[in-house]
Amino acid sequence: MIGLGLIGGSLLRALAASGHQVLGYDADPATRATARTAAARAPAGARWQVTSTVRDAASGAELVAVAVPLPAVGDVLDELVAIGYSGLVTDVTSVKGPVRDLVAARLHGPHSRLAGFVGGHPMAGRETSGFAAADAELFRGCAWVLCLDPADDPVTTLADWLDVAALVTGLGARVVPATAAEHDQAVALVSHVPHLLASALAATAAADPLALTLGAGSFRDGTRVAASRPALTAAMCGGNAAAVVPALDAVMASLTEARTALTGGTATGTAPAGADPIAALRPWLAAGHAARTEWPPAPGPTLELPARQDALLRLGRGGGWITAVAADRRTVTAVRPAR
Amino acid sequence: MIGLGLIGGSLLRALAASGHQVLGYDADPATRATARTAAARAPAGARWQVTSTVRDAASGAELVAVAVPLPAVGDVLDELVAIGYSGLVTDVTSVKGPVRDLVAARLHGPHSRLAGFVGGHPMAGRETSGFAAADAELFRGCAWVLCLDPADDPVTTLADWLDVAALVTGLGARVVPATAAEHDQAVALVSHVPHLLASALAATAAADPLALTLGAGSFRDGTRVAASRPALTAAMCGGNAAAVVPALDAVMASLTEARTALTGGTATGTAPAGADPIAALRPWLAAGHAARTEWPPAPGPTLELPARQDALLRLGRGGGWITAVAADRRTVTAVRPAR
Repeated sequence: MIGLGLIGGSLLRALAASGHQVLGYDADPATRATARTAAARAPAGARWQVTSTVRDAASGAELVAVAVPLPAVGDVLDELVAIGYSGLVTDVTSVKGPVRDLVAARLHGPHSRLAGFVGGHPMAGRETSGFAAADAELFRGCAWVLCLDPADDPVTTLADWLDVAALVTGLGARVVPATAAEHDQAVALVSHVPHLLASALAATAAADPLALTLGAGSFRDGTRVAASRPALTAAMCGGNAAAVVPALDAVMASLTEARTALTGGTATGTAPAGADPIAALRPWLAAGHAARTEWPPAPGPTLELPARQDALLRLGRGGGWITAVAADRRTVTAVRPAR
Repeated sequence: MIGLGLIGGSLLRALAASGHQVLGYDADPATRATARTAAARAPAGARWQVTSTVRDAASGAELVAVAVPLPAVGDVLDELVAIGYSGLVTDVTSVKGPVRDLVAARLHGPHSRLAGFVGGHPMAGRETSGFAAADAELFRGCAWVLCLDPADDPVTTLADWLDVAALVTGLGARVVPATAAEHDQAVALVSHVPHLLASALAATAAADPLALTLGAGSFRDGTRVAASRPALTAAMCGGNAAAVVPALDAVMASLTEARTALTGGTATGTAPAGADPIAALRPWLAAGHAARTEWPPAPGPTLELPARQDALLRLGRGGGWITAVAADRRTVTAVRPAR
């Protein structure tokens, strides 16, 4: 495990708790010290160790999970190549296209002995961060994207994908197959844009003490993720800018429709005589109401699917996920949303 | 109590629990039936009754609280005038300027015997609604705006304001003095715009099953209030359109700054060579982070203030509130936010 923040630390604990031997490393000496203290206190059946170098953590591993912010991923990959690491690599970065590009540039390079790569992203953020917040149960029930590509894939093989999917479903996560591009568009909308909305709302209210005192449930929830560390949110949103901008534009276009309903189509807040902002706003609100009251999607019946790239990607596009991979890697246990 | 939804029903229960005699009415027969069943089960010391007409509820009362959606407020006021009600009126509507206009048009009319009016708004919404969700403890610790006007006030006298403030602080609420205009601007930003953001986000995600499956904490919290009944949210936001539009514009201007940071100033999502969206986004995110981590404002020391209109409004503008009114109505117990 390279990187022992909230996600890396939680994955370290979750893997150790399910019987895997895990070595962890973090570039920050203070984080390593915190993790070493925690390791000494871990239950006997779920012990891990903290190393002082990437080499010590990775050299004997079958799988290296890279759990560092996007700006640091390239350097970690370079170091894995430099030490001659010859196993599989996965990651937990919140953008998948840029990571895939970083891997593609190195995977089959002249000095690389890397065996393969499966891009991943557990949808399990919290507004807290750091190893101290790590929790072995963080991933239970959470959606965890593992990336496949639609056609012949120069990066991820189906066999590697199924191995990582078997590991991750073993932690209780729901594995969602998607291409890197599909993932980046979806998380731009449901994760990155919400962070921008929260931050814009909190920053705008900051100038008005009366407003801050009147803020209640809708303000509390609508701004919660603005408390996330700005450096992490910036890496997440800025690293996915190409997908975040159209998603933000779509939400702002929807808000502009609300504004039009409120103003009766005029530029100011004063609706013309005869216009009824309340009646005009109701159908606009009905769409969001329907979407939210139907969320999260209820699981439909469990089914067996062939472990084929096209079938898996079709499942993910329809909002489905897998909960297990057969030992012979020929089928997966899948769930589609009920409709 | 006229109107037995979440707020009216909770206020009915809270007042009864603190020893007041309360009669409730709702225009909806099914709501009256639900409330009557609950009344029969209420503890002996906290009994209320449900009447079949506004007249039966109001005619012997010292105070009538109007807890109906904005579009129904005018009709209720007309009925109170028509039955010759001669006590004080308060309300709990989420916009205060429009209600004040409705009252001003009736208060000193030729047939009115109304004694006075104090506009109020408890900041205690929930995404649930209706009498079934009512809770006598809903207002404990919540901010509750009671409106004063800056100059000589044709609607609310200081004496009436202090009487209602004494009642409401007795329920455990923090009473925030503000003019109707100050209230409407503040709640536009911290309550109405968050509802619009939540609805826009939920509606935009609705088209993408993969996105809905990947939605986690930031989507859940960022869309929570989109589950509120569209008719109530439309009345709230549409009834305050003149204040909501500039608040929405301010948040959209902030989002446009984020967009500029993401695109390096270009129109598309692709930043020009050399631009660094991650670095550009960080200072923008820092403002919202600071605002959210300092929220809610911590209470400073308790102080005594003279019960004067100007001192009360200054307190509210600075983010302060009152927790008690002296029995002689000459001072209030006040709290300013710590800084």
